[in-house]
Formats: sequence, structure tokens, C-alpha cells
Amino acid sequence: MQLLGKRWTGLILFQLLMGPQRFSEIESALPVSGRLLTERLKELEKEGIVHRQIYPEVPVRVEYSLTEKGRALEPIFKDLQNWAENWVEVKE
Amino acid sequence: MQLLGKRWTGLILFQLLMGPQRFSEIESALPVSGRLLTERLKELEKEGIVHRQIYPEVPVRVEYSLTEKGRALEPIFKDLQNWAENWVEVKE
Repeated sequence: MQLLGKRWTGLILFQLLMGPQRFSEIESALPVSGRLLTERLKELEKEGIVHRQIYPEVPVRVEYSLTEKGRALEPIFKDLQNWAENWVEVKE
Repeated sequence: MQLLGKRWTGLILFQLLMGPQRFSEIESALPVSGRLLTERLKELEKEGIVHRQIYPEVPVRVEYSLTEKGRALEPIFKDLQNWAENWVEVKE
């Protein structure tokens, strides 16, 4: 459960709610370092929240997607978004 | 927003959902150190999520409670609890 609160976990999961993506796509969408992204994806995979699909192509293609357990987090993200919109001032 | 993910923040807020409490009550309800609890309560107060009420009695009484902004987090806790109940195995 601590994993959900770790830095970047929320944004990575939020990104994957939009569908399966390659590492480079996630990396370019978020201001997170490749090393940290690799670490978080490994942790999320170990917890059964993210699925890593390897396509035997040349060059090999690897895609990350949310498992059913991962998609079940969607209501929490929606609520967090609502809460942030109502209560968090964006410092201009 | 990172504050919500910090260690113990969730449990402290969940505890305060049950109503205003004194420091000692929160501290005895959670396996958190007094130092860390003090730190988190200060951060939550600064973010306007927790309110600190001082009662001019002898000895002085200090109570912590959720602000409206804090109580607005309740749906997130309910969803997180549902998710955990459905998806997180408790290792016996």
C-alpha cells in the first residue's frame, strides 16, 4: 500500500489509465528519470498492478499496461482529481 | 499532493475521520513515533487539511480535527479501503 503513495507512482498509473504504452512513451510524458521509472514499473509489476508484455519483434517491443487490479484504482484517481480541483490552488 | 502519499499521512487522516482527537489519542492509536506524528500534523495544518484547536484550560488542551478540505478526502479513503479489501492479500 505504501507503493501507491510513493513519488511518481500516481502519475505513472494515471498515464497508463490511457492504455498500454512503451517505456519511452511513459518516460517522455512524465518529468521522471529513466532509472526511477524502471524502478517503479518493476515494483508495480511485482504487486500485480502493472503488466509487462514483450513482443518478439526486431527490435523487441515491450509494452506496459494496467492489470485488472491496476484498473480498479481508477475511482481513486478520479476522486483525487476532483479533490485537487476543488481544494488545491495552483500557484501561478 | 505529495503529502497525501507520505508515510502515516493516510492513517492519521483516517484516524481523524472518526472526529477531533488529542495528540496522545492519535499517538496511542497508531504505531507512529511522536516526532513523526508532530511533523505530519504540522504539514497537514499548513496545507489546511487539519485544524489545531487550543483550549485555554489547565493543563492546556490541544485538539486536532479535519477541516472541510480534510473531510473532502473521505471518498478517497473509502475507495482505497474497497480496493485494498478486494485486491490486497493480508499475509497471515
